[in-house]
Amino acid sequence: MMEEQQQMEQELQNIIGSISPLDEAAMEKARARMDILTKPQGSLGRMEDLAVQLAGINGDFFPVGARKRVVVMAADHGVTEEGISAYPSEVTAQMVANFTGGGAAINVFGRQGEVEVEVVDVGVKVDNNLPGVKRVRVKAGSDNFRRRPAMNRLETLKALMAGIECAREAAGDGIKVLATGEMGIGNTTASSAVMAALSGYETSLVVGRGTGLDDEKLLHKQKVVSEALEMHKPDPKDPIGVLSLVGGLELAALAGLIIGASTHRIPVVIDGFISSTAALAAVKMCPNARYYLVPSHLSAESGHALLMDYLDLQPYIHMGMRLGEGTGAVLAMHLLEAAARVTLEMATFEDARVSNKDEAGEDEKEVGSETKGAEQ
Amino acid sequence: MMEEQQQMEQELQNIIGSISPLDEAAMEKARARMDILTKPQGSLGRMEDLAVQLAGINGDFFPVGARKRVVVMAADHGVTEEGISAYPSEVTAQMVANFTGGGAAINVFGRQGEVEVEVVDVGVKVDNNLPGVKRVRVKAGSDNFRRRPAMNRLETLKALMAGIECAREAAGDGIKVLATGEMGIGNTTASSAVMAALSGYETSLVVGRGTGLDDEKLLHKQKVVSEALEMHKPDPKDPIGVLSLVGGLELAALAGLIIGASTHRIPVVIDGFISSTAALAAVKMCPNARYYLVPSHLSAESGHALLMDYLDLQPYIHMGMRLGEGTGAVLAMHLLEAAARVTLEMATFEDARVSNKDEAGEDEKEVGSETKGAEQ
Repeated sequence: MMEEQQQMEQELQNIIGSISPLDEAAMEKARARMDILTKPQGSLGRMEDLAVQLAGINGDFFPVGARKRVVVMAADHGVTEEGISAYPSEVTAQMVANFTGGGAAINVFGRQGEVEVEVVDVGVKVDNNLPGVKRVRVKAGSDNFRRRPAMNRLETLKALMAGIECAREAAGDGIKVLATGEMGIGNTTASSAVMAALSGYETSLVVGRGTGLDDEKLLHKQKVVSEALEMHKPDPKDPIGVLSLVGGLELAALAGLIIGASTHRIPVVIDGFISSTAALAAVKMCPNARYYLVPSHLSAESGHALLMDYLDLQPYIHMGMRLGEGTGAVLAMHLLEAAARVTLEMATFEDARVSNKDEAGEDEKEVGSETKGAEQ
Repeated sequence: MMEEQQQMEQELQNIIGSISPLDEAAMEKARARMDILTKPQGSLGRMEDLAVQLAGINGDFFPVGARKRVVVMAADHGVTEEGISAYPSEVTAQMVANFTGGGAAINVFGRQGEVEVEVVDVGVKVDNNLPGVKRVRVKAGSDNFRRRPAMNRLETLKALMAGIECAREAAGDGIKVLATGEMGIGNTTASSAVMAALSGYETSLVVGRGTGLDDEKLLHKQKVVSEALEMHKPDPKDPIGVLSLVGGLELAALAGLIIGASTHRIPVVIDGFISSTAALAAVKMCPNARYYLVPSHLSAESGHALLMDYLDLQPYIHMGMRLGEGTGAVLAMHLLEAAARVTLEMATFEDARVSNKDEAGEDEKEVGSETKGAEQ
């Protein structure tokens, strides 16, 4: 087993080492293209930055109508024993069944946006062995990290590699955009612990109300997280260790998915608090993975804004959502697609015979810039 | 002419008087539906509020795949003579041609979101009489409001009625969602003046850089707006008068479109700074029109955040865009469609056999609420 673990660590390090920064030439080309399109320079704001990032990931202008997939990692959490969530783990399995039936919010948004929904069981307590669920069950839920490590290091590595494998398969299927999704009762608690351990932020800043805990239960949840961190003293320089001690199977699998997406130069749209915690772990393991992250929405879960700041990501959608499943990420894929289309489908000043400052005489020099504003 | 004006004023008042608040019973029904869907109560945040508003507008659950249209009102502004925009009015006509050619950002987003783009010339300086442009040219651009009224009252009424007529035609065509768009060099200046006059905010707070004026030109633009307001002393209680004195043809037409949409119980998605100024004018004329407004994005134009607060609208998309044309509104239609689909396509707890607190025993009472959180 020790040998298996060492092999996996080595394999993971090789994969991480293969991830490179973005293609500067492609980004420069996209930036130049943005400036000759019939709109004010910079007037599409951060959508222009997104278009440039996508080109840098893809090595050329990002294609229109790229095939998209959200990977919903599902797992249970032993820490629910501590009453940090008022509700039992069984709902994780029930919601997995709902995903396969097409009735959850992620299914609705997926159908609307033509985004495939892949559901992965990396450790749901109840094994329903449902058709349509990819089973890579590392174990039947993590252990209660208030009492003992959530997982051992080998289990964490297996979950990470499962996520990397999902990205590899996606690349093989021709998927060009990935998104992170999750389902797991108790996973805001694990995410808060991982975020605190990796970022150094106070527990009180990173533990939120989840589905709506009252003040008393919120304090209890904070206490559980604080005590667990006190007990395990996770080393912030060892993200795999942090995930093992106070994380969860779906968190590790999502971190793997993000690393895998980066390996295959696939942009990965990050959903809310749990997904962003996985992104934090991925970036701590592999700083270059940060280049492949696309933000989506700002969750109502209290630690999310802080986490986005920490990752220097600015969410695009502000709807006060806190559902998880990947719902915010899938909605934001519409904006990503828009960025790709702008790059390839908008007319240039020359195409549309709109005067451009570069080709005009002194007096007309600013005509092109004038189109800088319908809002002029 | 005086008689024509009186008739139009009367007709407008009749239309305004016919606009009613939302259907409370339909809203209650939508709210109840939100609470039995397989998601935490309230976890879709403001998307749930949007779904409830849409039901209230429609008188029942809002349909999936409703036909959508953005109306792009184009006009020129005499105040460009004052050098408030570094660039000439001719670009308005050039961009109208670009719209008909399908090469502008609004065309790209319209194709992506299956939103029809209607281009209306309500007063572009150059009359190119292009196929595909609806011509209701009230006059060839407004007058320079730094020197004289932008329009006379009859012209303003005609532009308002043209907008109302566009909404009536849309309703006849089976359009179920409208969005506001515009093109008009100089129209941030007119919008700032209208916003200041109607809201009472200081000029310095409502005048922005438009396409990116430097400090000196920004101060000049503020001075032009301040002097115009000082000269005309528009009465904030007379929005038609405000539009006549310091507004613009497309602003009046958009205010009309919003009033018309409200008459036909069609939700109208409001784009950026200029569209929001038109919405302010519409709401001042007709407070009930407020119920039909759906926000879209937060523009980078400095007065927009203040204007959204004033209207008590919270924009969904934060991308720092400032392009106008209706681009933010058309992107936000994806979120509106998502709200409609959630209402009609998500499984209920009963459908999906996910335990719900109402049907469970004491111990399981909270199971349903547990599904309140993938982010639990």
